[in-house]
This record gives sequence, C-alpha cells and structure tokens, in this order.
Amino acid sequence: MEKVSNMMRRRLLVGASGAVAAAGLGIARADSQEPASQSNPGPVSNERPLPDYAKWKDADSLIVHSANTIETRRSAFGSGGVTPLDRLFIRNNVAPPSEDIVKDPDAWQLKVEGVGKPRTFSVAELKTLGLESVPMVLQCSGNGRAYFPHKPSGTQWTVGAAGCVIFTGVPVKAVLEAVGGMAEGMQYMTGTGGEEIPQGLDPNTVMVERSVPLDAIEDALLAWEVNGEPLPLAHGGPLRLIVPGYTGVNNVKYIKQLAFTKEQSPASIQQNSYRLSPVGVKGTPEHDSVWENPVKSWINYPAEPEQTLKAGRVQIRGVAMGGISEVKKIEVSVDGGKAWKEARFVGPDLGKYAWREFVLEADLSAGTHQLASRATNAKGDVQPEERVENNRGYINNSWRDHMVTVKVA
Amino acid sequence: MEKVSNMMRRRLLVGASGAVAAAGLGIARADSQEPASQSNPGPVSNERPLPDYAKWKDADSLIVHSANTIETRRSAFGSGGVTPLDRLFIRNNVAPPSEDIVKDPDAWQLKVEGVGKPRTFSVAELKTLGLESVPMVLQCSGNGRAYFPHKPSGTQWTVGAAGCVIFTGVPVKAVLEAVGGMAEGMQYMTGTGGEEIPQGLDPNTVMVERSVPLDAIEDALLAWEVNGEPLPLAHGGPLRLIVPGYTGVNNVKYIKQLAFTKEQSPASIQQNSYRLSPVGVKGTPEHDSVWENPVKSWINYPAEPEQTLKAGRVQIRGVAMGGISEVKKIEVSVDGGKAWKEARFVGPDLGKYAWREFVLEADLSAGTHQLASRATNAKGDVQPEERVENNRGYINNSWRDHMVTVKVA
Repeated sequence: MEKVSNMMRRRLLVGASGAVAAAGLGIARADSQEPASQSNPGPVSNERPLPDYAKWKDADSLIVHSANTIETRRSAFGSGGVTPLDRLFIRNNVAPPSEDIVKDPDAWQLKVEGVGKPRTFSVAELKTLGLESVPMVLQCSGNGRAYFPHKPSGTQWTVGAAGCVIFTGVPVKAVLEAVGGMAEGMQYMTGTGGEEIPQGLDPNTVMVERSVPLDAIEDALLAWEVNGEPLPLAHGGPLRLIVPGYTGVNNVKYIKQLAFTKEQSPASIQQNSYRLSPVGVKGTPEHDSVWENPVKSWINYPAEPEQTLKAGRVQIRGVAMGGISEVKKIEVSVDGGKAWKEARFVGPDLGKYAWREFVLEADLSAGTHQLASRATNAKGDVQPEERVENNRGYINNSWRDHMVTVKVA
Repeated sequence: MEKVSNMMRRRLLVGASGAVAAAGLGIARADSQEPASQSNPGPVSNERPLPDYAKWKDADSLIVHSANTIETRRSAFGSGGVTPLDRLFIRNNVAPPSEDIVKDPDAWQLKVEGVGKPRTFSVAELKTLGLESVPMVLQCSGNGRAYFPHKPSGTQWTVGAAGCVIFTGVPVKAVLEAVGGMAEGMQYMTGTGGEEIPQGLDPNTVMVERSVPLDAIEDALLAWEVNGEPLPLAHGGPLRLIVPGYTGVNNVKYIKQLAFTKEQSPASIQQNSYRLSPVGVKGTPEHDSVWENPVKSWINYPAEPEQTLKAGRVQIRGVAMGGISEVKKIEVSVDGGKAWKEARFVGPDLGKYAWREFVLEADLSAGTHQLASRATNAKGDVQPEERVENNRGYINNSWRDHMVTVKVA
C-alpha cells in the first residue's frame, strides 16, 4: 500500500504548483497535488488505479483524479436517494493515516476541550452517550470547479464530488451534556483531524483543523457508521465529525480533538483555504469561509454526451438538494433554460440535509436537446443561472454550468 | 461456480426429507434442501462458504445455512435504517439462474398477460414508463422460525432473514396503463420467476409463481435497482416484482411474466407452501396464504449472549416495523416484559413499509437482564406476546420469542 501511494504522490507532485513541502514524509496537501487543470471538464477515463485504502470501491463507477481525489461518475449515482458506499467520492486534504486505526474502532480516543470538564472519550464510551442517524449530502466545496472558466487550481470535479449518505453516531449535544457544557465565551466548534504531522513541519501548514459557527452544533454528530457499516478509513473512520449542511472539509475525518474555541483555527486550511476570494486573489480571513452548501441540482440521466437516445418518451432524472434548508421544488428545462416544467420528487424524503431524486417524463424528438434543472429550497433560495465567481472555484451551483446536452436519433 | 453449488447441493440433499427430484439437473426446492432443524436456535458459526453468486457479500456479517439460505447476524444490521446490500439475507426457493442474465439487464424480457393488450417489454422499455423508489422491509415468511417449539422443517432463521432496503423501478400501475389496463374479472396479480424448469418435470412442483390480491398493485414495482445499485442476481436481478409489505416469497425474482389472473397460481409454492396450516397438517388452499408482514420488532444491541457488558448507561437499540401500516410506537422492557418504557425512534422515517431504528437509554446494573421490544402500528396492531402456531413456522412476531438475555458485570 505504501508503495502504491508513494508512487502516486511522486507522480502527482511533478509539475504541481505550491506543493506544501513534506514530499517523502508521506504528507502533502492534496489541494496542491493536483495536476494543472485540463482543457476538457467532462468525465475522464480511469488511467489511475484506486489507491489501496479505497480498493474496495467500485472502480467502474469512479473517476480517479489522484490517490486522494476520487469522483463518482454522473451515471453511477443510482436513483434510490442514498449513494452506495462503494460509489461514494473521496477527497482527502492530507493522505489518510494507516489502516490500523480502524482495526479496533471502539478504542479510538477523542479529546474534548473548551468545555466545563475537559476529558478524553474512547469511541466505546461515546456509544453509551446517545444515538442518532442523519441522512445528508456530503459534498466537496470544490464540486463543480471544472465549470469555472478561469480554471482554478485544484481537482476538476464536475458533479461527482458529492453523495447522499446516512451517518450514525452520537449527537455533539449529548457529548456537551456529558462534559458540563461549553466553556464561557466560545464562538466556534473546532475539529482536528488525526492525520500524522511530521516533526519539524509547522503543523498549521498541513493539519486539517476546521472551525464552524456554533449554530452547526444543533444537528452535528460524532459518527462511527455510514450507510449501516462501520465508518471506513476512506470516509474518516473510526470517528468523523459530521456537520449536516456544511461542505465536506468541515466534516473532519479521524477526529482526535473536538474543541470549543474563541477563535477560528490558526491552520492554513481555515485561514487561507476554503475562502471565497475574488479571482486572482489568495484567500485570507477577510474573505468568507466556505461553510454551508447552497441549493443545487443536476441531471443524471440522460446525461452522457456520447449516448444517443431513441426519440420518444424518456424519464429525465437527477438529484436536488436544499443545502441547510429542505429542497421544496424542482424544475426541468429541455430547451436550455428557456421554458421550465415542474418535475416530481420520487422515493423517500430523507430530511432537510438529504438530496431527493426527481423525475420529469418528457417526449424528446430527434435532434439535440439541452437539459437543465433548477431547485428551490424551503427558505426560498432558487438555484441561480450563474455561478458566484471565486478564486478557487468553490460551491458552484449554477444551473447553466450543470446543463447537459443530449442527442436524440 | 457450478462446481461449488452442485457440491453444496449434494451435501445438503443428504438426509433431506421430501426433496423435489431434480438432483443433478441443478434445480431443487431450497425449502426441502435444508438439513433437519438443530437443537440450538441461536447463531451458528459459519462452517459453509458463501456460494459463488453471493461471493461479494460480507461473510463476517452472515450465517450461511445453505447455498440458498443466508442470514444476517443480529449484530450486523447497523443502525442507519437501511441494510447494507453486502449484509442483506438471501433466500431462494430454487437455485438462481446463471449469472449471465444480469450481464445486460436492459435486455431482460417481461411478458405481461391478463391485460387489455398483452405484450412483452424489455427492461429498457420499462425504464421509459415511469420511476419510483420504495424503502421497505424485505422479510422471509419463515423469519423467526427457530423459535417455534415444534421445530418446523425449513431454515432455522432467528431474526436475520430480513432487511430494510430501497428498491427502484417502474410502478406496476404505470405498466398497466401502457397495456390498456387489466382484463375483466381478474382477482390476482401473479408473477412467474425466471428459474429454469428442467424438461420432464411437472413445472408446478418447482416453479416459483406467486399470486397476491389486487390491493397489492397500489405500491408494487418492477424493480431493477436496490440501494442505488443494479439489482444483483442474488436479490432477483435483472428484474424483480416488489410488493411492499408482503413477505419475501411474494416478491418474485428474475420475473419473466406478470399476469393478472382469475385464480391463484396452480404452482405448489402457492397451493401448498406458505399456508398457515395447524401444526402437523400440510398446507392446502383452504388455509390462509402467507402474504402480509405483521407488526414486529426486535433488539439488536445489546443482544449477544456471550457478550458481558459493564454496568452503567447503555443505548438499547433495535428495529421496529409496522407491516403494511406505519410503525407508530415502540416500547422496551428490561425485565422480561413486566414493565415497559416507550423508546425513541432515531434516524430517517423512510415510509410505512420501512423499519425504523429505535433506542432506549437505560442504566443496567450488574446481573442478568431480559430485554424485549414491542411495536405498535398506525392501524393499532400491537406486537403480541405469543406467536401464532402454524405447521411451517411462518411470520413469527412474538415479542417473547425475540427477547434477549444479557449479562452485566
């Protein structure tokens, strides 16, 4: 395993700009490992093998951008509302720790700080404190980056850095109750990942430590299970901080410390990365942090440009999500966004943080059709036509960017 | 694959009573293949390997009773409400057809009879007619058989011949619309499985053909997907008739014909098997057919008799289901059913045919405790203390039978 991932890292570091040191130490920010963006934002063929820690995944359903960035194909989401685990995307900011940490998940330790009575819990102890399950969209902040015209650095995700899965664990509120509540004056919930930081390196340059506002505590979990299975290393096992409605990076993997803090984390991943800075401008704490997912949708079928459909009736289907407010309405256009028809949600309503499958029955005549979808959430946010431009290409929810062109014979 | 499953069949046929011919022809009723019931109804160790068609399953989560009867361990359900596919039970009445039939699922053919305009559809054509997803409990009629004191013949299932999964396909109602509706005077929906029937054998003795009342049409699907993945052969792919709320056998696998009929199928599996006949009496059409699932629940944790818990707080959890009416209430007893406390549902409400995870926080002192659970559905059916005795040990929902004993140190 080490051999494969080191080879992979070496290959990816060639030509990378801004790589944060640590080559040979087994640690590097995946952010900076990405090859420069390519011309074609469509699905790429799988030239790279799955890394060992993700070997159990369904390779045919995935696009391997790098050992730490693996995307679900648009055709592979299925239509049941819950994304199969072996098709779920992976995005690590730092190479994952050793597989050893998931061998005895109940023994994993979590330090809790910034509370009345700070202490350490094993996962076994956390399991006695409470139980909750939350279906939710897990989506990388950079999902849809491939559609930004200025070609931001980072993985060129199209739609597949997202999935809807069910996490199970203990509510953060139950843990807070067990430690005498939050200490006075705290403003953020700060999670620290269990990645190994090599000696001699300033931890702030590489460590995955993210702070979110205290509102996020309400539905947050410390999760040991996803889709009914023990949380695998690839998805942050043995224990992951789950912040429903917040983008992927805020859901800290292999969490080793949960702290309530007065300030946001000093880590570079908090201070400079995941900031909505203008194009060409490096992120700083003055720019908004990437926290909440926006209202969004896209079509999954028909969607393959190379696929030719027969004229006639077709069930156009996709997924729609509301961010932190339940998705309430979904419209579909078959003419590039000129006219819209309300589509129908199908299958289970898994709650406000989940996505819903939608379907519109349409009769498509021979020719070329541009299919688009537009979601509205309970707050009244409507998925916009245009993306919000930003330097690193975060949270793209433009319906025009996600439109697909299909040929009908 | 053929080698393994034939070996398995030969082994299992030794000493089996009433085996329906066909040895060497690759067809035998799994019902009759079972070894005689054993003394201990608890989990058995896995002496048998997974059959080739189910090699992708998680062996550690399963008890392999035979090549056609594989049970989920009580400890392996997870707590997210949806059962992972690689842990879902398998029960075939006849050995499955060749894996070849799932290689091009869209090409599979379904004949529709007893309608205005009878015709054949490919799965590709069915996909143009509609789309729906239904989360539901899939449960073998014989789940809980191991608890009947008269030791009925058949697999000695405890709780694991059940799971809650999400099926996706076309509503039967949409197919009916496409064929001009049902023909006049029809009383049943009858599905025929695609198992191969060897020449020279009376098809009625082995074929899997089941009839259900017309009420069942309302939410029935012809499904090509389960939990977001193409329906595997092990679960009836490429196409399965899904009758939400009805026991497993009524959900006909590899369905090749969907017919609306005046009479119930003449197949033995309809006429004689799956009948609620008195103990010692063979089933006949005079006895009630096993159709709908009853209200039921059981505890999944703590539940291992060999496991010793530490005294203190514990999250007692399990699953509760309403049958064809939504589960509304769940009570838990820690003293063998003398006193009951209302427990809390956790996680998503997946609709009336699904089960729900429940949890009761309890402080258990040192000693031995008998844990029981009792569900109530929206119709007001309460899970009974006693099973309904019947010859073959079907639909056991007694809370007393499903009670577990745990030791606390």
